Amino acid sequence: MVIVMKKQATERQLSRVLARVEEVGMQPHLSRGKVRTIIGVVGDNNDQSPDTFESLEGVERVVPLLGPFKLASRDFKKENTCFSIDGAKIGEKKIIMIAGPCAVESKDQILQAALAVKKAGAVALRGGAFKPRTSPYSFQGLGEDGLKLLAEARDVAGLAVVTEVVAPEQVPLVSQYADVLQIGARNMQNFALLHAVGESHKPVVLKRGLMSTIDEFLHAAEYILSHQNPRVILCERGIRTFETHTRNTVDINAIPVLKSLSHLPVIVDPSHGTGKREYVAAVSRAAIAAGADGLMIEVHPDPEKALSDGAQSLRPEEFQQLMDDLRPVAEAVGRYM
Amino acid sequence: MVIVMKKQATERQLSRVLARVEEVGMQPHLSRGKVRTIIGVVGDNNDQSPDTFESLEGVERVVPLLGPFKLASRDFKKENTCFSIDGAKIGEKKIIMIAGPCAVESKDQILQAALAVKKAGAVALRGGAFKPRTSPYSFQGLGEDGLKLLAEARDVAGLAVVTEVVAPEQVPLVSQYADVLQIGARNMQNFALLHAVGESHKPVVLKRGLMSTIDEFLHAAEYILSHQNPRVILCERGIRTFETHTRNTVDINAIPVLKSLSHLPVIVDPSHGTGKREYVAAVSRAAIAAGADGLMIEVHPDPEKALSDGAQSLRPEEFQQLMDDLRPVAEAVGRYM
Amino acid sequence: MVIVMKKQATERQLSRVLARVEEVGMQPHLSRGKVRTIIGVVGDNNDQSPDTFESLEGVERVVPLLGPFKLASRDFKKENTCFSIDGAKIGEKKIIMIAGPCAVESKDQILQAALAVKKAGAVALRGGAFKPRTSPYSFQGLGEDGLKLLAEARDVAGLAVVTEVVAPEQVPLVSQYADVLQIGARNMQNFALLHAVGESHKPVVLKRGLMSTIDEFLHAAEYILSHQNPRVILCERGIRTFETHTRNTVDINAIPVLKSLSHLPVIVDPSHGTGKREYVAAVSRAAIAAGADGLMIEVHPDPEKALSDGAQSLRPEEFQQLMDDLRPVAEAVGRYM
Amino acid sequence: MVIVMKKQATERQLSRVLARVEEVGMQPHLSRGKVRTIIGVVGDNNDQSPDTFESLEGVERVVPLLGPFKLASRDFKKENTCFSIDGAKIGEKKIIMIAGPCAVESKDQILQAALAVKKAGAVALRGGAFKPRTSPYSFQGLGEDGLKLLAEARDVAGLAVVTEVVAPEQVPLVSQYADVLQIGARNMQNFALLHAVGESHKPVVLKRGLMSTIDEFLHAAEYILSHQNPRVILCERGIRTFETHTRNTVDINAIPVLKSLSHLPVIVDPSHGTGKREYVAAVSRAAIAAGADGLMIEVHPDPEKALSDGAQSLRPEEFQQLMDDLRPVAEAVGRYM
Repeated sequence: MVIVMKKQATERQLSRVLARVEEVGMQPHLSRGKVRTIIGVVGDNNDQSPDTFESLEGVERVVPLLGPFKLASRDFKKENTCFSIDGAKIGEKKIIMIAGPCAVESKDQILQAALAVKKAGAVALRGGAFKPRTSPYSFQGLGEDGLKLLAEARDVAGLAVVTEVVAPEQVPLVSQYADVLQIGARNMQNFALLHAVGESHKPVVLKRGLMSTIDEFLHAAEYILSHQNPRVILCERGIRTFETHTRNTVDINAIPVLKSLSHLPVIVDPSHGTGKREYVAAVSRAAIAAGADGLMIEVHPDPEKALSDGAQSLRPEEFQQLMDDLRPVAEAVGRYM
Repeated sequence: MVIVMKKQATERQLSRVLARVEEVGMQPHLSRGKVRTIIGVVGDNNDQSPDTFESLEGVERVVPLLGPFKLASRDFKKENTCFSIDGAKIGEKKIIMIAGPCAVESKDQILQAALAVKKAGAVALRGGAFKPRTSPYSFQGLGEDGLKLLAEARDVAGLAVVTEVVAPEQVPLVSQYADVLQIGARNMQNFALLHAVGESHKPVVLKRGLMSTIDEFLHAAEYILSHQNPRVILCERGIRTFETHTRNTVDINAIPVLKSLSHLPVIVDPSHGTGKREYVAAVSRAAIAAGADGLMIEVHPDPEKALSDGAQSLRPEEFQQLMDDLRPVAEAVGRYM
Repeated sequence: MVIVMKKQATERQLSRVLARVEEVGMQPHLSRGKVRTIIGVVGDNNDQSPDTFESLEGVERVVPLLGPFKLASRDFKKENTCFSIDGAKIGEKKIIMIAGPCAVESKDQILQAALAVKKAGAVALRGGAFKPRTSPYSFQGLGEDGLKLLAEARDVAGLAVVTEVVAPEQVPLVSQYADVLQIGARNMQNFALLHAVGESHKPVVLKRGLMSTIDEFLHAAEYILSHQNPRVILCERGIRTFETHTRNTVDINAIPVLKSLSHLPVIVDPSHGTGKREYVAAVSRAAIAAGADGLMIEVHPDPEKALSDGAQSLRPEEFQQLMDDLRPVAEAVGRYM
Repeated sequence: MVIVMKKQATERQLSRVLARVEEVGMQPHLSRGKVRTIIGVVGDNNDQSPDTFESLEGVERVVPLLGPFKLASRDFKKENTCFSIDGAKIGEKKIIMIAGPCAVESKDQILQAALAVKKAGAVALRGGAFKPRTSPYSFQGLGEDGLKLLAEARDVAGLAVVTEVVAPEQVPLVSQYADVLQIGARNMQNFALLHAVGESHKPVVLKRGLMSTIDEFLHAAEYILSHQNPRVILCERGIRTFETHTRNTVDINAIPVLKSLSHLPVIVDPSHGTGKREYVAAVSRAAIAAGADGLMIEVHPDPEKALSDGAQSLRPEEFQQLMDDLRPVAEAVGRYM
């Protein structure tokens, strides 16, 4: 951490800051410039928040130097984290495809979707039973009935099930049916929920909040990891910007940045990231080329009748086509589908 | 709702869209242009989501015209919503001041803060017992012990207590101690939590998410209102932008916009909105001049020792000064402190 | 400046960085932590860009500590800069009102506007003769004919003329007619143009770019100041965010921040900042309450027939009403209209 | 265009809007809903700005339906625009590589860079002689001497020269030396400059402004096209968001969106888009996978000594490696290097 003193800070203020640094068990290194004095703060106690010093008199600002995430950090663990989702390893050479409808709507719909994505090569089925919706009057999902349909589709198609959990008290229920728990973008900083999935024994897909920085994203992962659940998959799904041609802006830079900062596997959701079916293929190719370990794609047997997000869902034959298009891209970067 | 057909849409696609509009009980009005055809969709069924039509073949985009919030809307209720918080009416001429520390830290701290803000003219005491923090390693609040200290401070100082609730299952516990429940910015779209406070009988301060549009903000309020709790206070607390001199950017435009769209009272939190003590006074004056019904201000008896957000907390004497500065501004816009 | 070395930086890399600091005439102060080494860099040569060190091997990042603006900075000049625009002093207790139509459209229109805003108490007339427009097919202004009409309106109404200049080679022409040159938001980083107005002898209203940070804004001012023109007025006019209810988001925080960092006068343009007539009054009151030295308001004798920006223009009687509303707010903060 | 009337609009206001639509030569189609009335506006006169109707009494808002760009639009020209830059065709199967230093610094530097990028397979040399810099005290480029060095490098290495022009009056000078003119991000809406390069006979690389929407970007291209210069290359170079790990956020979605809306070739600049050398390769691969027609990459013979942007410049051997990595990605999407 670096403390920058104000130009007009007094010697007394400076002494007080130095004393405070020592109080919390760290060491100050002073640099006096002609214009300004700065204090390098080093020591073991890296959890110390900048708050500790920011409010002292004479301090202009405090620049934190170590991200406070640890377990999520590549400094902490050098090699990639790999684990298996129902047999398929994520984080290794195979690109993991998770596909299915936005929401579970009916037995027919979810079975058709499951069989279609399995046939095309997906390893997991996505589908929401509890849907967080902007308006209280929109379709909120089938609830536990939806979970049962997902479990049935898993048995029929032979796919792992990935589904969202939206409240801490639901974690046990959803865990009965799901192979992988999903934390949605709007809940990325719902810390009670992160705590609860951290205590479950299921892998977690953690979606980046649509206005969350990469640091906040990794901190959210740290909540899960610090509650003893090491199996976290980071999912970039687009951030909110001023551009309106697409629903969100997929932050393609985030893939190499996350890979550099963290050992956790990274996937991309181009369906929510673009909001439009016609742009899904291009962004999927880009994600794999940039180093993503997998994709999460919305597929609906009949998008025109979807109760939510139809405009961004691929038809089964379009998903098949996507898989075919992605194969050479994966190979071009030393991976396979 | 207006459906815009693609330039190259076929007659068959058009007929299908028209049929679908009628299927959901609405009426289509066709406008055929030289270049493009558009369909005005009118009818009672205003909850119909644009999703219903967006995924049909030949549709370029769907422009929703009525915000799906109803109970929060000024169309639904013309006159301002006013209600009493422990005797003080919010939404009328008096500017309501809610003040206190970011977090409850100790009995001494909260009692000192409470007495100081009461003396200066606040009507409610703020203070977090459950703190949502970006990092799992930061101070997370005193929990129920913090709630007890708040209740004690209320009794001693004669102030209503406003405190945050972060998980649905905590609502009954927090309601035992608090006069007003607060939903934090990171939980603005935690729909399970909105549902739970909607079913409580306490007034709710709903903070705008730092990534949320005004429409999403009003939808979040709608969740609470639609669960039979009509006492919602909207709190603008700054949005995330690219500017870094301040922690967030207070959206001053939002005050007249919210007042125009909704009948609910609006307050502003300039402490989180700026993140720096020295800018709190200017933004407080601006908020009242723009029409806010109240302010939420962080005050700490000793900001240099605060466990969180010290840099943005006012000292008691600074808060007293702020109250004095605000009085003529309130009067200039026909209000009083 | 602070140089943060990578965790795995070698001693050789460190020596090379230290040598480079000395090469450019500055002094390095080393702080070795358990995890990371940081170097405080101090010296006279404050223009040194972080670029100089960022690209060295072993460097993780460079944190600049002194804003490279000097002449614009309050460190450089403590007291407020005040100067006169056609008799009225800006930067002192009087709130300066600049008002008029977006574009000069006809003799009638500009004369009516000028007389109306003069009567209500404005000190300067705004009106564009050269209009930068997003589309090449939109109305681009009357050019020199517009300048002549502005000059005529000045003589008739007794107002200073503020008008935009869009290319360096136009500066002499526009200077013949205008009392104050305006740099539009889209040209805030048109450095050739900043250079040209810096060499003119006219005061300059510099509008903040709609996605410019406060630092970039002050750097742009520095371009003008460093070419010997000390009379710069900073104009906050809203930044681009994700919110769409208003055209832009007026950054009210920027007023106290600019006042703290710089000695230059600050005005606000709530017409462009909100994009809607109905929100102009609330944001105008806020701007003055927050400490702005003046406002720039769009007024059109017949907004329904305006060739541009009609929706945000006040009618003459609305402007008169605004002036009346602002008077007590100005007084509440120790100013007058 | 669709005009949405306010809920409480009167019949008289409605008639006036209908009359105005006809006055400007368009046809209104009325849809009366229970809650709101909307007017579809169709006709030839597509340049009509929403401004024309937005300021009428009773109008809530106007939704424009046709982008006002024409010449840039795929509606106007279906097939891809391809043209030759010094022999290499852009817009066809070959991926065009433009590489070189941020700024021309010396004869040695530019010759070394030119020979290195030529050897690795680039078709054009980039290098700035006039540098737009945030601070007036930063290195501003060598000016005409830099142009001469570029021309010399072209002759020695056999590469086209791409260089930035920053003011309208410089266009003739820069055109004497350059094969392709570049408009920088900060000048994307410098309309006088767009006009000037539109009248030149040189191809133009137009960089997307870091605060510009895709529509504004295509409008800027339209300025050039409408002045009779059809050879425009669109360059996505990252937009400004809240994320700070990278300098900007490359909008990968923009590639398929631009390809869908426009016939113009699209390239990507991952050097400015990420701001860090270590992320350039991943984003380059992503850009090609997403459908870009080329890349612009910063390469410096000795990045540690670069006068600007060293941290994002590749060394010659890194550029060679990048070319090798990109080859299979290009082939995976049916292109070649």
